[in-house]
Amino acid sequence: VSLDPAAARSLGTVRVVGTGLLGTSVALGLRTSGVRVVLADPSPTALALARDVGAGEPDRGDVEVDLVLVAAPPDVTADVVAAEVHTHPDATVTDVASVKSGIVEALSAQGADLSRYVGGHPLAGRERTGPIAARADLFLGRPWVVCPTAKTRPERLESVRALVRALGASPVTMAPGEHDAAVALISHVPQVAASLVASRLREAPDPAVGLAGQGLRDVTRIAGSDATLWAQILAANAGPVLTALRHLRQDLDGVVHALETLAGDGPDDGARATLARLIEDGRTGRERIPGKHGTAPTRYTVVTVLLPDTPGQAGRLFADIGDAGINVEEFSLEHSPGQQVGLAGVSVLPGVREELERALTQRGWHVVG
Amino acid sequence: VSLDPAAARSLGTVRVVGTGLLGTSVALGLRTSGVRVVLADPSPTALALARDVGAGEPDRGDVEVDLVLVAAPPDVTADVVAAEVHTHPDATVTDVASVKSGIVEALSAQGADLSRYVGGHPLAGRERTGPIAARADLFLGRPWVVCPTAKTRPERLESVRALVRALGASPVTMAPGEHDAAVALISHVPQVAASLVASRLREAPDPAVGLAGQGLRDVTRIAGSDATLWAQILAANAGPVLTALRHLRQDLDGVVHALETLAGDGPDDGARATLARLIEDGRTGRERIPGKHGTAPTRYTVVTVLLPDTPGQAGRLFADIGDAGINVEEFSLEHSPGQQVGLAGVSVLPGVREELERALTQRGWHVVG
Repeated sequence: VSLDPAAARSLGTVRVVGTGLLGTSVALGLRTSGVRVVLADPSPTALALARDVGAGEPDRGDVEVDLVLVAAPPDVTADVVAAEVHTHPDATVTDVASVKSGIVEALSAQGADLSRYVGGHPLAGRERTGPIAARADLFLGRPWVVCPTAKTRPERLESVRALVRALGASPVTMAPGEHDAAVALISHVPQVAASLVASRLREAPDPAVGLAGQGLRDVTRIAGSDATLWAQILAANAGPVLTALRHLRQDLDGVVHALETLAGDGPDDGARATLARLIEDGRTGRERIPGKHGTAPTRYTVVTVLLPDTPGQAGRLFADIGDAGINVEEFSLEHSPGQQVGLAGVSVLPGVREELERALTQRGWHVVG
Repeated sequence: VSLDPAAARSLGTVRVVGTGLLGTSVALGLRTSGVRVVLADPSPTALALARDVGAGEPDRGDVEVDLVLVAAPPDVTADVVAAEVHTHPDATVTDVASVKSGIVEALSAQGADLSRYVGGHPLAGRERTGPIAARADLFLGRPWVVCPTAKTRPERLESVRALVRALGASPVTMAPGEHDAAVALISHVPQVAASLVASRLREAPDPAVGLAGQGLRDVTRIAGSDATLWAQILAANAGPVLTALRHLRQDLDGVVHALETLAGDGPDDGARATLARLIEDGRTGRERIPGKHGTAPTRYTVVTVLLPDTPGQAGRLFADIGDAGINVEEFSLEHSPGQQVGLAGVSVLPGVREELERALTQRGWHVVG
């Protein structure tokens, strides 16, 4: 996994519009491979910062541009793309917004030339924003969806796929509607669900939230996301998110009805079966998520190890696991309330579980589960 | 964090009814401190296995019992507790079921002596079940809720709290209804939400689930749970789960209505504000979850490091972080589809971020975010 200078050389001159985290990271990645990059941003400060970190020169309009990448906020992306398609009549234009169909519709409505437009969506990001947080290698190893329209010419699609490869990411070609339905299911609906669950904790008594375990932490981790950005994303993908949430609400109604039956004194009426089916359907869906390297999911087994809460303990643990020649598939750290100790969850292939437990116990670790 | 033999010595003779994972683990923990433990289980095989792993002797009815712990399946716990209260007229009786009010109601209805009953719920478990998977230290550092009834005598409560401390767990005293409302919010509603989201993936096309990232994995991790067990748990806590899910559905209805407004061509009508409020309320709720050691939550910053996918790399990484004297707060491993490389997410206190990035870069690691 690395930047691909050969792919980069095929791109010609690239104009990056919007020098926030994503735009500046694209520019830095291309500059690393020697691509000529010119920059534009409505904020002079953001533009100057991007130049100062080495992302390229501000566009003075004196160079012929081959490829334009628009990295603007989601709610203005369509207008900026339309303007770029118009201003650069020979260039291929792409963008990085996380919802795609609305942009194509807006471009159509404005009569823009769709033959040169290819939507894009890199599945990458960081906690921090802005050009200073940008990095040339932000996209290394990440999927990057590219969405040709019905009118996109094949060589324009190929140019955007080359851009993606130049940045070390994996291009995944999808139709815009297909992309939007996919991110509704894998990103937008999980965000809504996490926020709904976390929201219920607002009025919970302190002792109740004090019992929180890893399950609640996992389900609600993404509930810490930015409200303004997510309102834009959900609004931009309203249709597909609505479709998925309506199905989810139908399932929820079934669960609520089953619980009403059980909480009342009426006949059971298959209520327990409804609850079991909910969990079983969830298992089936969960098993569709690919494991490492896009292969079929592997069921790992988790070995839980007690970890004194001092620096270097997790390192010692990993070193000991490495000495034993065992590969760690997943790893988690958890701390119990009121205890100066951590629990490390070491996920390994089921076949090496006994060997790992033996190796760790021999090396003085406390395996607790 | 360790077993507490002094607390164990105050318990007298303990009878454990139900020698599955939890009952056998309790028995092993008490035996480690020299407590006399007698065992009972309707399955002769489970009983023999528990004896063989050193959990104690089968109860022949020839010893006076001071404390009875019932570790039966949730749907028979109330009946078994009632029988034990009746058969052992001087003993304190407790249990480990994850829902508490229904048991108290069933005991009342049967006219059982509530002065000697104290409900219990250890927040611990493993993937595996049965006496062979049991461990003396299963409860070390875990919260264990103890629920006296309105009629429980103080010395009976104290006896069960001593049992909890004897096993190295942290006793948390709550009323049964308070406990059930708490686990509805922190465990049962998250389980329902995770299953609902994962269930939506059943009919998703392969390329869509191929884009799955850490967010979806986190939200749906507990969706892999056992259906039969969870149908029992949700049914046993139907009332409190129903209350919480009705509130959640009300919030969901608001989101669906906002998305309908946005997907249609009508006036915006505050729809974006509804979406932003959902995310903001989720943030507020999420921030109530305690961080390490029951202290206020700390916001960590995540440093993402590229990890060649060969054994020992995570160990090298942890060793290098330890060398730099930096404490890892949380750690995650993620793999992108189609790439023979992993991304390690190292969570640290924000103040040491720059130092960590510098230390890792110096040691040849590829910090990508």
